[in-house]
Amino acid sequence: MASELLQKRLYEEFGREQVLTAKEELACYSYDSGIYTLFHYFTPDAAVLAKSVDDVVKTLAVARELKVPVIPRGGGTGQAGGAIAPTGGILLDLSAWKAIEQLTPEDYQAFVRPGVTLDELNKALAPYGLYLPPDPSSGSACTIGGMVANNTAGQRSLKYGAMDRFVMALEVVLPTGEVVTVGGKQARVIKSVSGLDLKTGLFIGSEGILGVITGIRVKVAPVPPARAGILFLSSDRKAIPALIRKLYEAKVVFSACEFVLVQPSAEIAVARNLPDTPLPSPLEMVLLMEFEGNPSGVAWELDTARKIVAGFKGTYSIAENKEDMPRLWLLLDEAEGGVMSSRPGAKRVPGGEDIVVPPSLLIEALEGIQQLVGIAGVSCVNFGHAVFGNIHTGLLLKADDTEEMKRVETLIADIHTLAIALEGSTTGEHGTGLVRSPLMTQEHGPAAEIMKRVKNLFDPDNILNPGKILPIDRPGRSAEEKTC
Amino acid sequence: MASELLQKRLYEEFGREQVLTAKEELACYSYDSGIYTLFHYFTPDAAVLAKSVDDVVKTLAVARELKVPVIPRGGGTGQAGGAIAPTGGILLDLSAWKAIEQLTPEDYQAFVRPGVTLDELNKALAPYGLYLPPDPSSGSACTIGGMVANNTAGQRSLKYGAMDRFVMALEVVLPTGEVVTVGGKQARVIKSVSGLDLKTGLFIGSEGILGVITGIRVKVAPVPPARAGILFLSSDRKAIPALIRKLYEAKVVFSACEFVLVQPSAEIAVARNLPDTPLPSPLEMVLLMEFEGNPSGVAWELDTARKIVAGFKGTYSIAENKEDMPRLWLLLDEAEGGVMSSRPGAKRVPGGEDIVVPPSLLIEALEGIQQLVGIAGVSCVNFGHAVFGNIHTGLLLKADDTEEMKRVETLIADIHTLAIALEGSTTGEHGTGLVRSPLMTQEHGPAAEIMKRVKNLFDPDNILNPGKILPIDRPGRSAEEKTC
Repeated sequence: MASELLQKRLYEEFGREQVLTAKEELACYSYDSGIYTLFHYFTPDAAVLAKSVDDVVKTLAVARELKVPVIPRGGGTGQAGGAIAPTGGILLDLSAWKAIEQLTPEDYQAFVRPGVTLDELNKALAPYGLYLPPDPSSGSACTIGGMVANNTAGQRSLKYGAMDRFVMALEVVLPTGEVVTVGGKQARVIKSVSGLDLKTGLFIGSEGILGVITGIRVKVAPVPPARAGILFLSSDRKAIPALIRKLYEAKVVFSACEFVLVQPSAEIAVARNLPDTPLPSPLEMVLLMEFEGNPSGVAWELDTARKIVAGFKGTYSIAENKEDMPRLWLLLDEAEGGVMSSRPGAKRVPGGEDIVVPPSLLIEALEGIQQLVGIAGVSCVNFGHAVFGNIHTGLLLKADDTEEMKRVETLIADIHTLAIALEGSTTGEHGTGLVRSPLMTQEHGPAAEIMKRVKNLFDPDNILNPGKILPIDRPGRSAEEKTC
Repeated sequence: MASELLQKRLYEEFGREQVLTAKEELACYSYDSGIYTLFHYFTPDAAVLAKSVDDVVKTLAVARELKVPVIPRGGGTGQAGGAIAPTGGILLDLSAWKAIEQLTPEDYQAFVRPGVTLDELNKALAPYGLYLPPDPSSGSACTIGGMVANNTAGQRSLKYGAMDRFVMALEVVLPTGEVVTVGGKQARVIKSVSGLDLKTGLFIGSEGILGVITGIRVKVAPVPPARAGILFLSSDRKAIPALIRKLYEAKVVFSACEFVLVQPSAEIAVARNLPDTPLPSPLEMVLLMEFEGNPSGVAWELDTARKIVAGFKGTYSIAENKEDMPRLWLLLDEAEGGVMSSRPGAKRVPGGEDIVVPPSLLIEALEGIQQLVGIAGVSCVNFGHAVFGNIHTGLLLKADDTEEMKRVETLIADIHTLAIALEGSTTGEHGTGLVRSPLMTQEHGPAAEIMKRVKNLFDPDNILNPGKILPIDRPGRSAEEKTC
């Protein structure tokens, strides 16, 4: 059996310590943080716990020899199926490779290995008043390697952008086994336009289909000293774009601008946390506006925003400083999580869809999604990054109901089609992965063919993370095989 | 003669109006804004004034048929020889293709053709209080197409980043003649991670070697309401990194932070413009710190910075608002331009070198450059973007002195070698072009080979802009052939 030969070869290369082959161990690699793995159960044939460039090189050599796939994986916090193994093969677990090898605050830089988590890096940077800005809200588990592979954005990307702004160089092992550093062989700069920029576009955000990221040089930034915000609550979802436009005209700069379309069931949760604030009825929308920077600048943003918000029908709660901001974020979470009680017997599945539409079409997109969700006969909560027009649709499902799950698969496809019809994109920050790879031709047209050519240039045998970003026929395994 | 056949075929395709073939017309394409074209004189065999996708497709078809190069060109404001024709061929002049085809301020977007200049776009955006932030200081001439091809940064990139932050989609004609839109076939979003990000890395900053950019969808931003700054003058260059470190520790955020190492000859120019300020003697360094944002935030930056600057030996001048800032920028220019009178009979050549070093090695790099310039027996002024460690070395030369020019070619090579030795990069923002293409293996190691593979994938016949980024043997023409 191919799988046994693979395991034997891996034991020969690594010994038993670094190789996992037990069914229950491999089952732990069958999921990520998205909904896709509710529908599909895939496990690798073996997992290698890699802790060096040599480990990665050896893993790829075995994969080439036996023509089996290699699936790089960090913390498993992705939501697009990017780190699971739809056609078996070797799961290359990089999460235990944690060294912070250089920390040079005087150069605003760090060089880390892929398994370092965001929280671990930020803890090491804290004594210098520095941090890495992109924050996908999973800092305790998400790895820097995974953040690069998925070009992580997160809730403050409005102000700080995504991971590609902070990656200065990458060490990468190509499917051929070649080890290259992109971004300068030994440069330690925080700006350069030398050569073709292979790191951005080719490796950042390529979800492990072109090479395995083994080292990352990041640029870091000073922690902003002040933060404040307003939570606006209203009966009118149309206030979202209208308010944002006014704030933009007034030159307000957000660090985050998050909305939740509130389900009736969530009103109680919000009300409980705002006992002194009479809520508008019905409570249809919550919008969190956050500002970050120096204390005077933040006070200006808050004051300007407060005056504008006061002109809109609704109510609001203010956090004047960093210490009070978690209260507003919690309220936002409650507004989102309150959907849980809206459908007895159903469960909120992790993650959510991730479409983006032109900002002016936000309301149209939200209404389209709600219609589709109604047709599918399930519940959802829509939330997301308002200025970007980036909508997450979190679903409330009865996962044991096979008929319902079929309708949900159709629903997700329809949401993606809606996004494309509204001149949008199927994913703002979660990535393509396995989930959206079948949509690339529809979304990108002839450019999808160019993506294939690039993949083929780097990985002609399709060894690295097959099926992610670019679709393959999936032999896969059925959900019945599920063991844990 | 091949050149005559080429001209004949172009006339057949385009008629006479859109094709230039006269020697004196083609001579106008022999230069850019850098020093390289002082040493080398190259002209194309013909120029096509392209104003449509079809024009570009037809030009590439003729090029494939006759196996001649195509060199895309915008405003010719580059400094790395990226838009000149070292091996003849067709100069594809895109500067007259100026349409702003979509302007949707409600979506913070515009779709423009490559010949639109930065100033033209910003003029169209101004009524909405919007603008495109990257500013290479040549807004009246540089085109958006050229800004994308070179991934323009400029003096405020410290706060706003380079062009890649603002490009949402590109229409590109590949060397094969295929027309593709990268960044979504018809998406109009300001955030997406769908598919391989072919625009960033592959086309942005690729200096026209992979495809011809025919359409650009940019994201735009609100014009910041306030700006202020401090010009600090000192006898001690070492104050630059020390001051920056203190300001970073105090959480000051710059929109620009520019230094000039002042030549003695420039002191008069600076003194004339600061009549009431006794200058430190000798005046060795000028540092301009600029802050941009909301009025209160800018006032905080200015006040915090002023207190820190006051603790350093030297003197300073303050601009409290936007209206007064040009005065400080002019002083910076005077400090740089004052070098002109330092060497009778010599001329300041345009542009300058563009190395970047780790920020903590700025002084070491400056001292290294000055030593090398001394050995070459010429004069220079060093200026640049202090926080980034990005140094421009502007040279004062006797261009008619053949011996001196030979020494200067050696000098430039030595400056590049110095950059690499100091864990730096040969170019922070000017690009690789023809000038630095021979250095790519030295700077990037095995990654240079990967760049070649990518180039070969897109352009196996090396038709598009040969010699840029990746070196070729240059048959070229000698400077003696120069005619205008």
